[in-house]
Formats: sequence, C-alpha cells, structure tokens
Amino acid sequence: MADKRKRRRADDDSDSELQPLKDQLKGDPTILKILTSLKNAASSSSSSTLTLADLKLDTACREVTDLSLDSIQSKIETLSIEIARSILAGNGFSFQVPSRAATNQLYVPELDRIVLKDKMSSRPYANVATVRKAAITARIMQLIHQLSLKSIHVTKRDLFYTDVKLFQDQTQSDSVLDDVSCILGCTRSSLNVIASEKGVVVGRIIFSDNGDMIDCTKMGVGGKAIPPNIDRVGDMQSDALFILLVEKDAAYIRLAEDRFYNRFPCIIVTAKGQPDVATRLFLRKMKTELKLPVLALVDSDPYGLKILSVYGCGSKNMSYDSANLTTPDIKWLGVRPSDLDKYNIPEQCRLPMSEQDIKTGKDMLEEDFVKKNPGWVEELNLMVKTKQKAEIQALSSFGFQYLTEVYLPLKLQQQDWL
Amino acid sequence: MADKRKRRRADDDSDSELQPLKDQLKGDPTILKILTSLKNAASSSSSSTLTLADLKLDTACREVTDLSLDSIQSKIETLSIEIARSILAGNGFSFQVPSRAATNQLYVPELDRIVLKDKMSSRPYANVATVRKAAITARIMQLIHQLSLKSIHVTKRDLFYTDVKLFQDQTQSDSVLDDVSCILGCTRSSLNVIASEKGVVVGRIIFSDNGDMIDCTKMGVGGKAIPPNIDRVGDMQSDALFILLVEKDAAYIRLAEDRFYNRFPCIIVTAKGQPDVATRLFLRKMKTELKLPVLALVDSDPYGLKILSVYGCGSKNMSYDSANLTTPDIKWLGVRPSDLDKYNIPEQCRLPMSEQDIKTGKDMLEEDFVKKNPGWVEELNLMVKTKQKAEIQALSSFGFQYLTEVYLPLKLQQQDWL
Repeated sequence: MADKRKRRRADDDSDSELQPLKDQLKGDPTILKILTSLKNAASSSSSSTLTLADLKLDTACREVTDLSLDSIQSKIETLSIEIARSILAGNGFSFQVPSRAATNQLYVPELDRIVLKDKMSSRPYANVATVRKAAITARIMQLIHQLSLKSIHVTKRDLFYTDVKLFQDQTQSDSVLDDVSCILGCTRSSLNVIASEKGVVVGRIIFSDNGDMIDCTKMGVGGKAIPPNIDRVGDMQSDALFILLVEKDAAYIRLAEDRFYNRFPCIIVTAKGQPDVATRLFLRKMKTELKLPVLALVDSDPYGLKILSVYGCGSKNMSYDSANLTTPDIKWLGVRPSDLDKYNIPEQCRLPMSEQDIKTGKDMLEEDFVKKNPGWVEELNLMVKTKQKAEIQALSSFGFQYLTEVYLPLKLQQQDWL
Repeated sequence: MADKRKRRRADDDSDSELQPLKDQLKGDPTILKILTSLKNAASSSSSSTLTLADLKLDTACREVTDLSLDSIQSKIETLSIEIARSILAGNGFSFQVPSRAATNQLYVPELDRIVLKDKMSSRPYANVATVRKAAITARIMQLIHQLSLKSIHVTKRDLFYTDVKLFQDQTQSDSVLDDVSCILGCTRSSLNVIASEKGVVVGRIIFSDNGDMIDCTKMGVGGKAIPPNIDRVGDMQSDALFILLVEKDAAYIRLAEDRFYNRFPCIIVTAKGQPDVATRLFLRKMKTELKLPVLALVDSDPYGLKILSVYGCGSKNMSYDSANLTTPDIKWLGVRPSDLDKYNIPEQCRLPMSEQDIKTGKDMLEEDFVKKNPGWVEELNLMVKTKQKAEIQALSSFGFQYLTEVYLPLKLQQQDWL
C-alpha cells in the first residue's frame, strides 16, 4: 500500500478517479488489430467514391477540376481568340462568369459537400457597371497565362501588386481570381496561385516535394512544413493505418515528441487552427492516394466542429472547388462534449460558453453536414445544454502525457469515433 | 529592334525604366566573391563575442544561461531543502525573485541588447498580497522538476491546464514561469517549456532535429518546420555564405521555389511575421555555430524595422534571456525607404502611412538600437518624412521574379546593406 502510494506520487500524473480508465487499456496488439480493420474498411469503401456526374441530379451543378498548365494556356488562348473575333465582328466582348453567390450554392448530401449550381452572369466590356471588372478579368487571365508559361507559383498578394493601379485593392483581384477558376473550370491551384502555408505533417508518410523525397518519420519534432503548391507534391507512400488530424499546435507537439506514430502507425497533420488551403489539399491528397481513415482531434467547442466541417465539406466561398478541397468521411474522435464527463475533466478545466459560443453552436445544429450525422447532433446538443466547452489541452490536467498514453489509445481501442 | 520588343513582351517583366538597374548586374562569380569576403569577415569577428562579464559595468546585471536538465533538478531540489529548513526553523518561507519591470531593464550598447539589472523582490508565503503568488511559484517549480525528470517538453498552455484551480488564468502561470527562469538563472527553453513553432527554414544547412538528420536543400518548396525545442537541435553543418532572414511567407516561397540558395549559397529563414521564440533561438544558434552574416529582408515600414529589432536586440518582456534569444549584428538589406525611389517602385504600390505608423516610426527613432546605427536613422527619417511605406511584395510590380533575379542579386553585388 505504502509502495503504491509512493509510486503514484513519483509519476504524479495518476489520479484515483482515473485508474478505472487506465485499467481499461488493453495491449497495443489489440488496438492495432482494430486500426487495421478500420484501414481496410476505408480503403475498400473509398475506391467507389461518388462524383457529381454519378448522381444525375435534377439541378445542374458545376465543379472544377485540376488542369495541366498546357490546358490552362490553351483555354486562355482559345478564349482570347473568341474575344478578338467578337470585337472584329463589331460585337464588343463579354465574359460569361459562373455565379458564386450563396443562392447559387447547394449542399449535396450524397457527396457530403457544397457545390455550385449552374447560374451564369454576363460581364460585358460595355457599360460603366462592368467595364472595370471585365478589364480586371482580362488582366488576371493574362497574368495567369504568364505564370503557366513560366511554370512558377505566386501568392495572391504578388498577383495584386503586379497591377495595383487597375486592381485598386486586393479583394478585387482575389475575387476575380476565383471567377477565373470558374470560367476556365479549373481549381485555383491549377492557376499556380497559392496560399501561404502554415500546416505541418509528421509520421509514417514519404512524399516528394518539388522533386525532393521527404521521409516524415525522420523530421524530428518540428515536422515537415506542408508545401504551398500541391501540384509539386507526389509519390506518396505510407504504412500508416490512419491519419490523425489535429486542430492545434500544442497537441501536435506532444504527439510528435512522443513519436505517437511509431506506437500506432499514423500520419499526424495540423493546420495550427483554421484550416488553410494548402493543408486541406494535402489532407485530401493523402486520403485519396493512401485510402486511409481520417480521425480528428479538435477542441470541444463549436469552433472545433466548424474546423472539422471546413476540412470535411468545404467553406462556402470556395464551394466551386469543393471536390478538390474537401476530405469526406472524417471521423470525430475527440475531444467531444461527452468526453468531459467520461474522462472526468475537472470542473475548473472546463470553460463556460459565451452567448456567442452558444449561438454558434445552435446555428451549427441547423447545418446539413451536422444533421446528417445523428451522433454529432447528440454531442452538439449536449454541448449547448451544458454550456461547457474544453480545449484539447484540458487533458493535461491528468499529466502532460495523458493525451498520448491514455486518452488516445483508449479512444482507438474503444473505436470511440463518430 | 522588332526582335528585342518581342523578347520583352514574352517575358513581360522588363520595363524600360528598369533596364539601367538590370544592366548594372555583373556575373554571379563577382557577387559570390563579395559574399565570401562578407562571410569571412563575419566568422573572424564573431569569434570575439563580448559577454556581460567582459564589460565590467558599474551596474550589476543579470543574465540567464542554458542549463542541463540535471542542474535544473538539483537547483530546484536545493531550493526546496532551503525552504523546508526555513519552515522548520519557524521562519516560514519566501522566494527571492529578480524584478522584470521596465525600471530594472538596461540597454547595453556594447552588447547591443537589453539586459536585466539586479533588483530583487521578496515573495513571502506570509501575507494576503503574496501568498497566492508564492504558492504558484512553488507549484510551477514542482511541475518543471517533473518535466526535467521525464525529459519531455510542454507548451505554456499545457502547464496552465495542469492546475487551473490555482493558476486561474494563463497570464498568471506564464508570468511566474518567467520568474522561475530568473530565479534559477536559466533560459526558458532549459525549463522544457516551449512556444509553438511557426518558422520555416530552407537552403544550405544540415542539422539534427531530435536525432533525425535534416538536409534543408532537400526540403522542396515547403521547407522544414523549425523545431519548437532548440535543445534537441544540433550538428549544424553548412556551406552557405550568409543567412537570409525574411519577414514574410510570400517572399520566402518565391525564394524557395526559385532555389535562390543554389545560385547564392545561403540559408533562408522566416517566422512568417512576428518573430517567435523558436525561430529566434534557431537563428541565434545558426549564427553562433556557423558564424555567418545575417541579412534581413523586411517590409519598408516601422513594423519591419521593429521585427528586425526583436531578432537583433530582444523584446522587453524577455530581456532576462536576451543573450540567448538575440542575434547581434543583423544587416538591414531591404526593403529600405531609400529603395522605393532607387528601384522606381511605382507610386500606386507605395502605401500612405497612417497616423499610428508615423507615431511608431518616430518612437523608433528614440530607441537605442536604432540610434547606434546612423544609416538606420537616416532611412527611418526618410520614411517618416515621405510618409510612404511599401511591402516586399511591391517588387512584384516589375514581374514575379524580379525579387530573386534583379533586386536581391543587385543588393548583394552592391553590398547595399546597413
């Protein structure tokens, strides 16, 4: 008895209330078996991924695809010739631009993502209302043509600065850039215009970044910065059983330092908060090429779920590109509202939700992507009812390594994801 | 003539006003020769780095050093025994805490950084005013002791969550953490409490991150995420001639994609905005171990200069650790206010400074670290006088690759740094 007490004090992480949970942990081989069958299920199911074309919807929908630089060039050149002919025929010219307004967006449950309907609007180089926007559209196309000739990548900010006089402010060039994606029917990354990177990846994956082979099991604690230009990423190989998507940096560091991916073969990825385009593209590419299940670890608050939704079914303002930016079938591993009691998170580590938090939570209950998953609705209802939220870090109250040594292994063993 | 015009249109980047600048560019061997002598000068001068002890100042000053986990443990244990003795002798106990207040800070021109003077304050476990803080101090020491026993790293957020009831909010545990650094006389990174990483590095450097060897010439465009725990970084090797410190991500991506480091052997590093502790430690370590000159590329605005100052001479709230966090003798390569005219940055790419910008600029003119460099004062005066600022991205108005193909090579060739 004295011995036991002494041992406890030495590691100082255990807590009598927690012992039952620790005791439930079986050996790693049991958990690995569970993960292997999860992986096998994911790789057989994702081979039959539905596309928009398969669905034969009543509403016509529009999606963009990745195009090669050659096709981008020839599309822009064809369009330019059409415009020149129209001008020479005395008809002036006009761009036909797909509408990206909210009224033209549609959530498709079968695909579990938002897509664009087929409304178009005309942008003639003719009247005061549209002449500037038509000029900007032509200029952006010219710049994109140049990028594709040189085969280099630039940021949206670079693009803006090439013609400040015309664009006036960056929101104008950014918005027309999305229009140009829709007009050409290609993804924004095909245009070689990239967002700045902030994600990192570590664990059981090898891939090429601009020709260099990167082994993410040999990237220390820091990990590999996710490349901003997904078209230069390829040759993915992995012996992982799943992808662990982490909302925050702090949890990522804990997992990386403990080399969690060596105990349970996985790939650990984080965008350090709000998902950026580069991380979303990278996650989708991993999921598609490696056919791995994706388990998400986010804060237990409405924003954690929102982040999950952006990875899962896309953000509204880039819905035209949802097929390439989203990763379907992400499982919500934790931290879920029901975990707070299940894992005895102490009262003082739970935070009261603000009015705004509660409103966001209630709004999310109306979202299609939540409604289609009854388990998520139940969890979100519990959150709104208890008015409590908690960060992933709250698990540190049981010891710094509780996340990697108890919480996650038990979650995996119990297949406790939704 | 017709040919020349055609060629110009093809790359579309040239501009008749710019031709004189492009024409000034000599071959790369000339520029490499310049850089080699710069490097040689840096490696011979930095061998005689001054320390606080060398100076024999009138004012006693306090600095912390990197300590091993063993020394941290024994320091905490010694302190605990002293406290226990004091309590047993009926005297209660009290911590002696170095003051980190502004009045206790000193800029030392010889070292070119801010240090702490030797004022101490007593924190007795005795009266209402200090009893909580004394308890927090003891608890943080206990947690640090645990970390050093386990040899793991955690974030400040993790630390806070281990005892929310006591700490109440994170500012309290954060602030006492800095106190504990000062009490023990060690750097915060020695305490194994780390900040989240956001920097990336690419180019001619090989180093080990937690035992993995990382070759940053083979990190694609994304680069290597800078590790959060500098004590696991080592074995630095490099054939670079200089370190290029970049304020922003967009410029970093341009340099990485163009593999600028292969044309001019260098190491490219960015913290993507405000310098974080991990990037500052990494930069210092590179500079110290590799003895390379550091050239900085920041926006031409007061914040660009402020960022430079944080890398160079430290932030006020961590002045006790300035020796380990700062990189002396950073050269201001660009974009400098005088570059705007010299490189004919178009009017529409220059931005008017706000009232707040101008005030910040004027305040900076009073700072010691600016005043000691007459060239910087001149540039800053010009900025405040013209009331114009510009981002690094403004150079894109001459073509996307103007930065890597004209601006930087010419700067290096002309040794145009301050």
